[in-house]
Formats: sequence, structure tokens, C-alpha cells
Amino acid sequence: MVKPRIAIVGLGLIGGSLARRLVNAGCEVTAWNHNDRPYATAEADGIICKPTLAALAETKPNVLVLCNPLKAMPEILGALKPLIDTETTTLTDVGSVKGMVRDQVKAIGLDGCYVGAHPMAGNELSGWEASDPTLYDDALWAITVDEHTEYRRFRAVADMIVNRCGNRLIVLDDATHDRCAALISHMPHVIATAMINELVANPNRNIAAALAAGSWRDMTRVALTDPNRTRAMVEEDAANVETLLRNMANRLTLVANVLHDMADTGVRPTEGDVKQMDRFFAQGQPFRDYKAASRQPEYAEHCATVELSIPENDWQRTLLESARRGEHIVRFDGERTAIAQARSVV
Amino acid sequence: MVKPRIAIVGLGLIGGSLARRLVNAGCEVTAWNHNDRPYATAEADGIICKPTLAALAETKPNVLVLCNPLKAMPEILGALKPLIDTETTTLTDVGSVKGMVRDQVKAIGLDGCYVGAHPMAGNELSGWEASDPTLYDDALWAITVDEHTEYRRFRAVADMIVNRCGNRLIVLDDATHDRCAALISHMPHVIATAMINELVANPNRNIAAALAAGSWRDMTRVALTDPNRTRAMVEEDAANVETLLRNMANRLTLVANVLHDMADTGVRPTEGDVKQMDRFFAQGQPFRDYKAASRQPEYAEHCATVELSIPENDWQRTLLESARRGEHIVRFDGERTAIAQARSVV
Repeated sequence: MVKPRIAIVGLGLIGGSLARRLVNAGCEVTAWNHNDRPYATAEADGIICKPTLAALAETKPNVLVLCNPLKAMPEILGALKPLIDTETTTLTDVGSVKGMVRDQVKAIGLDGCYVGAHPMAGNELSGWEASDPTLYDDALWAITVDEHTEYRRFRAVADMIVNRCGNRLIVLDDATHDRCAALISHMPHVIATAMINELVANPNRNIAAALAAGSWRDMTRVALTDPNRTRAMVEEDAANVETLLRNMANRLTLVANVLHDMADTGVRPTEGDVKQMDRFFAQGQPFRDYKAASRQPEYAEHCATVELSIPENDWQRTLLESARRGEHIVRFDGERTAIAQARSVV
Repeated sequence: MVKPRIAIVGLGLIGGSLARRLVNAGCEVTAWNHNDRPYATAEADGIICKPTLAALAETKPNVLVLCNPLKAMPEILGALKPLIDTETTTLTDVGSVKGMVRDQVKAIGLDGCYVGAHPMAGNELSGWEASDPTLYDDALWAITVDEHTEYRRFRAVADMIVNRCGNRLIVLDDATHDRCAALISHMPHVIATAMINELVANPNRNIAAALAAGSWRDMTRVALTDPNRTRAMVEEDAANVETLLRNMANRLTLVANVLHDMADTGVRPTEGDVKQMDRFFAQGQPFRDYKAASRQPEYAEHCATVELSIPENDWQRTLLESARRGEHIVRFDGERTAIAQARSVV
């Protein structure tokens, strides 16, 4: 069996961890980094490090994964354009926003061989020193496609994810990805940052910090990441994050209004107030139930298995609808059948 | 050396864990629970379980710790009133709001022997089955006092905390405690709940839940606790939580307004917008620095040690000012000297 050849651009936390996981999974992994500081230890881990992007492209990888910071993307795409054999190589990336990256890939004329990807893995650290192949344990990847994406390109990336990384995947369009990533990552980062700002602005900040236990620690952990990285992520997904922040501000204000009536001893909470609070504390129950179920031992084994037939035409829509139903692809059975686990919230 | 006699009312997560920790520390621990389900395993752990509050009070404990739910407080205080030997026994509690409990204690006429307490420990579980003495490892307690509190009552509770639990403490008035607890616990619980509500209301909820990684998991963990407990906690501290939710809504709206300009490709972000974002992402830096320092190995050993002389008059104010400076009492050196670690944010 021929080893898949995977090239990694950028040996930071995400790229370094992926490179090391793919080496462990028997791939031939080459890498280029904007400086050669990680090269000695990376080579010791079995990663073949290249001095230039040209040398990396020369290996004719099956998949080339861009793990560089988003702000370096246009420059790196421009440099790669004349170097890549687009027939052999499928280009992908791991950026946390997908619409913007596809626009950049299109602008440079590499969209014919491009499939977007976003592994849901990471922590508050960064850099090669923090890389760890177990960062990807049980990870789910979003693969993003558009109506022009070739099925074979999708499969090149999907096979790397399910067969080599041992991970799950869902297929999305860029807009759906970016809206959902804003909800579960970008907006929460802003909230965590606002929380530590609120503490620092408080004259009793030392007392508050002293009293802070698990809930505060967990809810502000992401505010401890490099604020420049957070800011870039938020600004790159500005429209989606804006909508969600306004929704959240409305939800908080609604609770504040009810609490205002309750705090004012002259005014009893109205029946409407009580109903608002009933609703507020009940609305998220399907998510609580989903989390309780998914914490059970061997949850994955208890998920219903779904066999998805992938049509020739509009296969993108079939896979997006499957993702909306909460199905995660875990492997492929031949060319046009995906096996998925049903993991829906509701 | 005489064993301190500690009585615990309520063998839930907090009371059960405290009882077990105090047994391990060589105290004589008696307990009463509203039902006797925990009694067999509690007795096996060395806790002497009593069938009635009268039997508990008969042991003339040095400290009686109310670990019952807040809503049961008036009834339990009423039942204890004729039973307690107030000369021997100092009454305390572990409730997450302090002003309301003191009001209830005053209403029943037990304030002469009362000192408030709030251990910053807990998790998303509840009940005796979840109790664990290590829940209190490295915990900090807030002790709340007012101008009438007798110093010997304070020391009875403080000695249990530093000598027996091996924990740190700060001394506050009720209002300062409740404002700070609202900041680091009650308000964050509302935010986490609003976040899961936002997800459940989203038509792409299954996709969002699939993409959810560490940041979402950590920031919504507290929303998975019993929503009735969260609701009670929030409503009991309504005025403080209201203020903080409005502050947070304003912070989020401010970022949303800047993102609106950035998302609208027709409008460049103004210089004012850029400065707003600079400020937003820089304001919390002192807290990031504090956390980075406190994660260092042997942080506690590197904290400056402060010797606090506790005056006869207005000792409450001296200790509150020490808490504001970020000093945590770790032991006492004789009757009127406290040894504290300086752990300030800024």
C-alpha cells in the first residue's frame, strides 16, 4: 500500500500536532515552517522538513494542508500558485473561518484543487513546543465545499481525516460553517474577554479574583489566550459575531429586567416575569440532555449508525443535510457510501 | 488536645465533602440530614449521624455549619433556635449569598452567635454521592462579619478553616461578598445559560454542537448544573446580578457596534473603532498576568507573606482592607496576628 503523502505548511500548535499524528498513522509527512526553529525536533519525530515552499511542493503531496496563520494566507497562496501540481495535489487548510479563505484561494486561482477544513481541536497554548498528536483525539472536522468542488478532492481530504487521523467529519458550506463557528467559538471568546474586563474594572477585583472558583476559571480560560489571535478571529467573522453578540446582549438584558423587578422589594415579580425566567432556565434543556447522553460511557457505540448514499449530482447538499440532522461521518464504504453516527441535540 | 466538635446540617455535595474533610483532619464530626439516605456510608466514613436536629444540638458543637439548601434556611434556623447553646456554639453556614442569610439569622434572633462563611468550592454535581473531601483542596473561604460580630466567634470559624480544612480565608462584609460572588459566579451562570439557549434556538444547532470544542465546553459547563439551583442563586442576589448583566450587555453591544462597521465593506472601521477594540482586548491584561503568575509551580511559596496585626476595635475593617489588597489569611500567630499571602491582581 502506498503511503499517502501529506505536506504541512506551518508547524504551530495545530499544524505540528497534525503532522505528528499523521506520522504516527503511517503517512509520509513533509513540512515547511516560516522559520526552521522546530525542524530539529520535528525531524526527530519523523517529519521531513523542507527549507522552502518550492521544495515542499516538489514532493507532489496528495494533500497539502495550510496550517499557517490566516494573515499569512494570501502571501503563502501566492507563493504556492506556480509551485503546486494542481492535478496531483489537493489543497486544504485548517483556518477557523472558511468563507474568507475560499475568497483568497479563488483570488489566486487555486480553487479548482481546494477543499476547506477546520478541525475542532485546540487549546489556549500555541507554537510547535505545545504540539501534541493527542490534541486530535476524538476530534470532529468540518469540511467546507461549494457547488464547484470535485468529489475526488473532497475524498482526498476526507480520507486523511477518517482513515489517518481517526477523526469524524461533517460537510458544510462556508457560510453555515462560519455562522456556527461564531456561535460556539468566536462569540464565546468575546464574552470571556468581556468577563475579565468586568473583573479588572471592579474596585473589588482582588476579592473577586480570590473568590473565583471553577465556574469563573472555566468561563474565562479562553480569555487567557493571546488576545491578538482572538481579535483577528473575531474581526475575520465580524458579521456573524455581531449578530450573536446582539442576541446575547438581548438575552442578558431580558434577565436583568426581570431581576430588576425582583430586587425592588416594592414590586413583586409579575406573572410575566416568572414565565420569562421559567423559559430562560428551560430553553437550553435539550442541550443539557444531549450532553448528559454524550457523557455516558461508550456513547459513540450507542449512537445509531446511518448509511448515507452520496449521489453524483448535488452531493454537497446531501451531506449538508446530513450534518444538519446531527450525523457525523466516521468512514466510507466504497466510493459513494458514507457511514455516519447520529449525534443530534434535538 | 481536645478534638474540635463540628456539627454539619445537610450532607449534600458541600456539606458531605466538608464533613469528610473534617473527619480526616481529626475533628469530631456530627451530622443531620433531612433524610437518612447518606447515613450508612457517612457513618462508615467516621461521621456521627443524628436522627434529629435536637440530637445534633445536644452534642454542644463548637461550630455548627449549616450546609442545607438556602430555601430551607428559615425553617432550620427556627427549629435550631430553642436547641442551640449559643454560649458554646458558633453558628455558620456555607450559602452562596450572605446578606440574605444574615437577615434570616437576625429575624430568628441567632445573630449573636453567627458568622457567615462561603467556601469557594463546588462542581456541577450535587448530593452526598458526589461528595469528596478533595473538593476543598486549596480552597479559599470568605468569612462575612458585621460590626457586631464577636472576635471569638470569627476565630472559631476561622480556626476550623485554616487549621482543620487547611484552607485560606478572607474577611468581608455581606454586601461586598454578594457583589463579588455575583461577578465571579452568579452572573457567569446566567451567561452560560444564555449561551446554551442561543444554541438550542439556532436552526443549525446540531452542526454547532458538533463543532463545539474546548471553549464552548468550558464556557457552558455551569449551564449543565440543575437550572433550579442556578435560578434560586441568581434570584437571591438579584440586584447585583442585574447590574452586572447590564454591564456585560453594554460591553457586548460596544463590540457588536465596532464589528458592524468592520463587517460592512462600505465602511472602514474608524480610528475610534480601532481604539475601542484595542481597549477591549487590552483591558483584562492584568488578570491574564495574574493567572500566568498563579499557574507557576509553587506560586503560593513565592507570594509575599504579610503579618497582619488585628486591632481590638474595628478589626472587621482591618481585615476587609487586607482582603481588598489581595491578602489571603493562611494561619494565625497567637490571638491577634494573622499571617497572609499577598495574591493581588493589580
